[in-house]
Amino acid sequence: MKSHKPLILVTNDDGITAPGIAALIEVMKTLGDVVIVAPDKAQSGMGHAITINSTLRINKIKIYDVKDEYSCTGTPVDCIKFAVNKIMHRKPDLCVSGINHGTNMSINVIYSGTMSAAVEGAIEGIPSIGFSLSDNSIDADFTASKKIVKIISEQVLKNSLPEGVCLNVNIPKLKSELIKGIKICRQAKANWIEKFDERLDPSGNPYYWLTGKFENYDVNENDTDIWALENGFVSVVPTHFDMTAHKAITEITKWKFAL
Amino acid sequence: MKSHKPLILVTNDDGITAPGIAALIEVMKTLGDVVIVAPDKAQSGMGHAITINSTLRINKIKIYDVKDEYSCTGTPVDCIKFAVNKIMHRKPDLCVSGINHGTNMSINVIYSGTMSAAVEGAIEGIPSIGFSLSDNSIDADFTASKKIVKIISEQVLKNSLPEGVCLNVNIPKLKSELIKGIKICRQAKANWIEKFDERLDPSGNPYYWLTGKFENYDVNENDTDIWALENGFVSVVPTHFDMTAHKAITEITKWKFAL
Repeated sequence: MKSHKPLILVTNDDGITAPGIAALIEVMKTLGDVVIVAPDKAQSGMGHAITINSTLRINKIKIYDVKDEYSCTGTPVDCIKFAVNKIMHRKPDLCVSGINHGTNMSINVIYSGTMSAAVEGAIEGIPSIGFSLSDNSIDADFTASKKIVKIISEQVLKNSLPEGVCLNVNIPKLKSELIKGIKICRQAKANWIEKFDERLDPSGNPYYWLTGKFENYDVNENDTDIWALENGFVSVVPTHFDMTAHKAITEITKWKFAL
Repeated sequence: MKSHKPLILVTNDDGITAPGIAALIEVMKTLGDVVIVAPDKAQSGMGHAITINSTLRINKIKIYDVKDEYSCTGTPVDCIKFAVNKIMHRKPDLCVSGINHGTNMSINVIYSGTMSAAVEGAIEGIPSIGFSLSDNSIDADFTASKKIVKIISEQVLKNSLPEGVCLNVNIPKLKSELIKGIKICRQAKANWIEKFDERLDPSGNPYYWLTGKFENYDVNENDTDIWALENGFVSVVPTHFDMTAHKAITEITKWKFAL
């Protein structure tokens, strides 16, 4: 007899051994049959990278006692592609990524491996969610996050999501009873003012670490993900992969190109 | 006396020695003062990846006889960030990426290093364009492309671009006189049906190459980039980095979350 339990694909970008994915898997096991394909090492900042100029290795593992679990040498997006094409025998009912150790608010959706996996899930036509907790620590407390993950995942399993849309969920670093609610919002206008930390190697040659300061240009707006998180709410941004600036089409169509 | 020539930043994802970037630089030298910061090796498929878990090296080079030129060990997005923060003393008037050896139509905007560099330019507030030619060959003929690059770049220098918008330009593999025109369009709904090519290493263990078949779901629509390119036009898609699915906010706001 066919299982009627939802089939759930889990990945992340902090790597298969991160406490955040363990918390996510714990919740998903209460909701359905779980398949894990996650990077074998940290892949933070990989954005929507895919591996096309080198090869991938996949290793079957047994850590989490689920239906199927693998580590992969590739990026989070590679993991989703591999799972859908090679491992799962039907399209999953839900794809979840995270729980990221650290936020992925605003413009960070574009740099984030966690969210790129969710966006790839949406490209594949799977209802998908990326979860991030506002705590970078390896010892982060995921107790409240697990409650939030369950509530939101149940709603997505029940209502599904509009075509091509996934959710970017950021959870504040607060005890469960102090979280004020779940707020559906938009990506704030913000970006990184980068700074390159220059150091000298033992031979005296320079090398650089990318660092930066995050700048929010939407400080007075209360409909953004940054506002929600700073004010004790869980932020949920519906996110899509159509990057067309539709409003700009009319304006640019007026340009005269002398071919 | 201050130079009144436009200051132009050039990068790509095929690497600093690719013929495509040489063609792009040739045109940019006729339009302004050129600074090049480009990857020292091919970075195709890197999407919006940034280097945060390892370090970057920058090497001053002298290949193209421009104001300033460097190769960088990082991704195309790293190159833009490094140029803006460490090399250029004022914000450039134009940022161009390419000319990519191969198209970046439709959903490929999200996987493409070429386009991610242009999107990063837009995030930095620079009028930015990614150029791609529908020819993967190292011997591709960039004659017609150079003409198109010049026409579009001149328009962007003249009109600038709406805030947060860059252009994704794809050029058909046609002689100049056969190109029908320049069409402003939207990103087509399409995606890759991936296939993993499984091989065995000399020890008999499997490894995989990501391949796939491109599937267009907008075959009957004539306002997309795929249609334009297939019909002999240059496609220009205004592209932005706000990934919020604004239309989905109302619907998802109706969900009942029992906290």
